[in-house]
Amino acid sequence: MKYIQYDKTGDPADVLMIKNATAQLLSSGEVRVRVLAAPIHPANLLQISGEYGIAPELPANPGGEGVGRVVEVAPDVAHLAIGQRVMLAGGATWREEIVAPAAAFVPLPDVGDVEQMSMLTVNPLTAHLILSNFVDLNAGEWIIQSAANSAVGEYLIQLAKERGLKTVNIVRRESLIPELETLGADVVLTDGPDLAERVAEATSNAPISMAVDAVGGVTFTQMVECLAFGGTIVAYGSLSKKPPVLNSIATIFNDVRVRGFWLQKWFETTSDEDRQAAFGAIIPLIASGALKAKIDSRFAIEDIAAAVTRAAESGRSGKVILIPNQE
Amino acid sequence: MKYIQYDKTGDPADVLMIKNATAQLLSSGEVRVRVLAAPIHPANLLQISGEYGIAPELPANPGGEGVGRVVEVAPDVAHLAIGQRVMLAGGATWREEIVAPAAAFVPLPDVGDVEQMSMLTVNPLTAHLILSNFVDLNAGEWIIQSAANSAVGEYLIQLAKERGLKTVNIVRRESLIPELETLGADVVLTDGPDLAERVAEATSNAPISMAVDAVGGVTFTQMVECLAFGGTIVAYGSLSKKPPVLNSIATIFNDVRVRGFWLQKWFETTSDEDRQAAFGAIIPLIASGALKAKIDSRFAIEDIAAAVTRAAESGRSGKVILIPNQE
Repeated sequence: MKYIQYDKTGDPADVLMIKNATAQLLSSGEVRVRVLAAPIHPANLLQISGEYGIAPELPANPGGEGVGRVVEVAPDVAHLAIGQRVMLAGGATWREEIVAPAAAFVPLPDVGDVEQMSMLTVNPLTAHLILSNFVDLNAGEWIIQSAANSAVGEYLIQLAKERGLKTVNIVRRESLIPELETLGADVVLTDGPDLAERVAEATSNAPISMAVDAVGGVTFTQMVECLAFGGTIVAYGSLSKKPPVLNSIATIFNDVRVRGFWLQKWFETTSDEDRQAAFGAIIPLIASGALKAKIDSRFAIEDIAAAVTRAAESGRSGKVILIPNQE
Repeated sequence: MKYIQYDKTGDPADVLMIKNATAQLLSSGEVRVRVLAAPIHPANLLQISGEYGIAPELPANPGGEGVGRVVEVAPDVAHLAIGQRVMLAGGATWREEIVAPAAAFVPLPDVGDVEQMSMLTVNPLTAHLILSNFVDLNAGEWIIQSAANSAVGEYLIQLAKERGLKTVNIVRRESLIPELETLGADVVLTDGPDLAERVAEATSNAPISMAVDAVGGVTFTQMVECLAFGGTIVAYGSLSKKPPVLNSIATIFNDVRVRGFWLQKWFETTSDEDRQAAFGAIIPLIASGALKAKIDSRFAIEDIAAAVTRAAESGRSGKVILIPNQE
């Protein structure tokens, strides 16, 4: 059974090791799951390189989410049966097989694309929670987001469309515009000077009650200037690696509010009921194909160095997925 | 009857004019009030010089608040009698006399210092609302503020003390420390490098749930770094004239929230009941002398140029007050 591990932080292509272990016997309450698909997210790479909000305990096993199939259950496990498709809720997913207590697996419907389902815990959930938890948005209202062609950005476009919200989407390159429009984006503009004026023109001066930012720096400042009185900007990333700069006029006189969103903290502080409600909102959309992400490439566990190298490249278009087992 | 007016924005000492009008007869429902004291606030000066959030309609009559005494009432006015001390709620207070509908005057108890009572609508109310409207603060909790020797800052120290809250106070000069400690400040530190470390040491690493900022720029950034997880920073001024710079780590991983406060908008959007409750909380404290501001100097209406010049000087210690009529 192959799995990925690192015992020091650094460039993922250098520090990740392919390890081998003999198959472990099941203890009471445990389940054996064969991993079918597990995505490589930017946050995974940041954690491996030691640039994330919290430092990993070493040695560490990377991977945040994925989908698998139950291949063995301990006799005392009642609610999971062999053959059940499951979400891998316990982390450390970059491996061929996981043995863990049954609670580490959440049953999934056996419909929908396995690769799409493998990505539901991080990006679609982030997009869903940002849309749901900060501003009370009604159908017809406008929101604005940066990094609109990121995975979260594309899910946000699709989820906003589902709810009848209108989106202004900021990207860095004009070449990205047609693809986002096909996805359902109402307005797509390139980042740069006079953003607020261009947004006002494209939306016929519609009030914008929420901005969603993954970039920071000047992009953050310009999005704040697009907000209506009392609007909220939610920061969930800092791709520019530059600090967000506020505008006193906006903050004080226009009552603009700043919030941050970090999925991991949401998991730590949210009740089971609220988690189930959030998953319940997005699983059917992913299973039906209404909500999906682009996939750039697929790699076997053995090719982890090539996989993380590809995942770190800026030119890629979509997610890099590990496929530890083919079905 | 002398009053102050300006018909163009600019340096207050240049553009303010002393005008004369003959006493106006009262119409139905009107009241004549002799103005006893009216403060000169920085916001008044910014408005006259055209640097405020909203531009004045010209010609304009300056002055935001004050105290007066009723000297005449129209026969149909029931709830105000001659001799009643009143708060001037309709603005344009830099004048000897105001004739206006009775609703423009709020009865005040005839106790407490007239000059202190003349300042209750702007600074003490700002301090009270910032303390009350953003974070649920319990006795024993710590807050931090910049510009602690400003009028709002000093009211905030006194109000926090009244509620059993502990304050960290940031000032620019060491010479200001003893005075703020006398006022009830728990910790007073000078602005500068390593602020977060110095605050942690002075408070024995106590969690700080709210920061109050009137400075912006780097001071804002450093105060954000002093906040506990989920803490809120409330900006109400921008004395450095530099934009507040956020910190992505604090915003995203530490869930720090940013809000702004602007008193004028609060007045526009608040119910009569909430206004009365807010005034009800501070008037008794001012009347009893528990809540007070330093006074730098007093000027007659004729000396308006000298008064606004003094109010704009950085070396002054306390408020500049106009005394249109002596009692």
